[in-house]
Amino acid sequence: MFSVTVRDHLMVAHSLRGEVFGPAQRLHGATFVVDATFRRESLDDDGIVVDIGRAAAELSRVVGALTCRNLDDEPVFAGTNTTTEVLAQVIADRLVIALGDAAADLDGLVVTLRESHIAWASYERAL
Amino acid sequence: MFSVTVRDHLMVAHSLRGEVFGPAQRLHGATFVVDATFRRESLDDDGIVVDIGRAAAELSRVVGALTCRNLDDEPVFAGTNTTTEVLAQVIADRLVIALGDAAADLDGLVVTLRESHIAWASYERAL
Amino acid sequence: MFSVTVRDHLMVAHSLRGEVFGPAQRLHGATFVVDATFRRESLDDDGIVVDIGRAAAELSRVVGALTCRNLDDEPVFAGTNTTTEVLAQVIADRLVIALGDAAADLDGLVVTLRESHIAWASYERAL
Amino acid sequence: MFSVTVRDHLMVAHSLRGEVFGPAQRLHGATFVVDATFRRESLDDDGIVVDIGRAAAELSRVVGALTCRNLDDEPVFAGTNTTTEVLAQVIADRLVIALGDAAADLDGLVVTLRESHIAWASYERAL
Amino acid sequence: MFSVTVRDHLMVAHSLRGEVFGPAQRLHGATFVVDATFRRESLDDDGIVVDIGRAAAELSRVVGALTCRNLDDEPVFAGTNTTTEVLAQVIADRLVIALGDAAADLDGLVVTLRESHIAWASYERAL
Amino acid sequence: MFSVTVRDHLMVAHSLRGEVFGPAQRLHGATFVVDATFRRESLDDDGIVVDIGRAAAELSRVVGALTCRNLDDEPVFAGTNTTTEVLAQVIADRLVIALGDAAADLDGLVVTLRESHIAWASYERAL
Repeated sequence: MFSVTVRDHLMVAHSLRGEVFGPAQRLHGATFVVDATFRRESLDDDGIVVDIGRAAAELSRVVGALTCRNLDDEPVFAGTNTTTEVLAQVIADRLVIALGDAAADLDGLVVTLRESHIAWASYERAL
Repeated sequence: MFSVTVRDHLMVAHSLRGEVFGPAQRLHGATFVVDATFRRESLDDDGIVVDIGRAAAELSRVVGALTCRNLDDEPVFAGTNTTTEVLAQVIADRLVIALGDAAADLDGLVVTLRESHIAWASYERAL
Repeated sequence: MFSVTVRDHLMVAHSLRGEVFGPAQRLHGATFVVDATFRRESLDDDGIVVDIGRAAAELSRVVGALTCRNLDDEPVFAGTNTTTEVLAQVIADRLVIALGDAAADLDGLVVTLRESHIAWASYERAL
Repeated sequence: MFSVTVRDHLMVAHSLRGEVFGPAQRLHGATFVVDATFRRESLDDDGIVVDIGRAAAELSRVVGALTCRNLDDEPVFAGTNTTTEVLAQVIADRLVIALGDAAADLDGLVVTLRESHIAWASYERAL
Repeated sequence: MFSVTVRDHLMVAHSLRGEVFGPAQRLHGATFVVDATFRRESLDDDGIVVDIGRAAAELSRVVGALTCRNLDDEPVFAGTNTTTEVLAQVIADRLVIALGDAAADLDGLVVTLRESHIAWASYERAL
Repeated sequence: MFSVTVRDHLMVAHSLRGEVFGPAQRLHGATFVVDATFRRESLDDDGIVVDIGRAAAELSRVVGALTCRNLDDEPVFAGTNTTTEVLAQVIADRLVIALGDAAADLDGLVVTLRESHIAWASYERAL
């Protein structure tokens, strides 16, 4: 199995609902450094998993639609707890849509969001 | 599959038995930066893999019971080579016990110990 | 010259005033990984720059008073642009007060705030 | 499952063939920071996955045969696009040969090549 | 003193002249991860050292004029050993020109080029 | 001012004397990742601060004389608290001796020892 990873980031405000979140129930914020890993059983004729330029551009577009915002005010997240885990899944699913036909050549996708030097979360899905 | 990782560290003295270890057969020491990754097929009702505050607290407790010690003097390690691989397994198994019922909701656990900028070891187990 | 650095972090929401900030004029957020570097010409009788346990505890307290908040709602920041540079200075100045008499033994302090994998800011002051 | 990883690096010139590579079709270069991860279901009698000294030495030898070269001039790569993905596979396969009998005790190998702070590729194979 | 740093990278082929360079006398290559640090005694009216968006854009432009090339073929480097130290100075000097009038507000500039996980070089100049 | 940095590491056991060290008064251990930074006002005729191969080799030799040992048993450290700060100075001073005549061309040296992902110490001296 081969994989290629590209890194980008987003900077958002949000609050989390549920006692388990303690002080993070207050409006606060985070930088999420995002690693998108594209997986593929065998390489294409160019010897690559994916056009890394296109992969980076699509990740930048997906991340750009979320960054510099208060997620609590985004209608698409109404009723959703925007935890690191949930955001990893949202970004992965939007990336698959953004890749369109190119996603059909891939076998899997992992999105990791690093929220600090001591905590991160991932979502992995087959393709 | 989702995962959440928290990072902590321990600083210990120890020696290793066996010619394969060369100069590390002498009493020496290491900082192990520990990453504990909790895996789960689907998120709970709060949208998380695990209460990250509790996960970090349990990891801190498990690591705190080992740090600032000479592992060669710990009765629990008598007859055991405290290699990075073995310590990763010890920390993983102790974490599962520490999590108690909460571990039942998880599907896997990976513990990685980084011993320098050029070497690390992992232990992964299903739950 | 000797120095000792300890690392912690804070996660806040805020907005910035001024056209130069572009989309960061909207309410958004950031994780700031904070490095506090204590500088001293010569070591004390214990062979250290500062009691690293106390330094880490004071940094944790200073950072804890800011984290998990919307800085736009904090009266102390009314009329202040909470840029990364400004926050570095605020944290440095609060650290000096928190250290009390211990600061008199130090010759300088640098506080660095990393806001992403590609951008950070520092404030350095003599003591 | 256990694993042990060692890190090394190589610095090479090369060019890539295919419109998808854009400006990287020109002769340029890269530092590849290489992580070789050796996987094994259970530990040996010494409590290790692999003799880490030997693993690092073999990786150094494999990487040393490629570094400080223009890959476009190496006969072994004639007709091959030396993408990051392809180089990860080449290094993995050469490592298995270099390990000889020791590879029989292992269950898998992953080689990751980091080409910058924002892009990397991996190749994983069973053993 | 305040500072702001932005990070970018370039990927080039080159060779070095002089016995001291050993195997790096052959045509090879490197990824240079570039950190540009802008220093200023006091902040401007917006509370910043420099417009970080403009700083990043200028660094991207300077780096973009060098990347994906064989430096041995660039007329501007004829007769120059393109060591990491020399490239740090070239990038710093080009950044100052690119910033134009904005450089007059700054007190210093440091450019650091990381060529691997175990080696980097810096050039620092007053402004 | 130019600088070049090379990285290596050592793994040692030791204990620290003094109440300020709390649990680190017990025999424990540490991995110290060592960065040696050589500073020089202007470059030599080859366009470098120092022969990086020789710098790395001397650092490896200095670090090799300390690693895989219990510093409490080393006669040279009798009566000395081997704090991170003290070890940074010891390594810097030994490096200067090891460089011999080559040190005369340098203007300064900084040695940084990282003891974990959240703590490090430096010693800087003029040459």
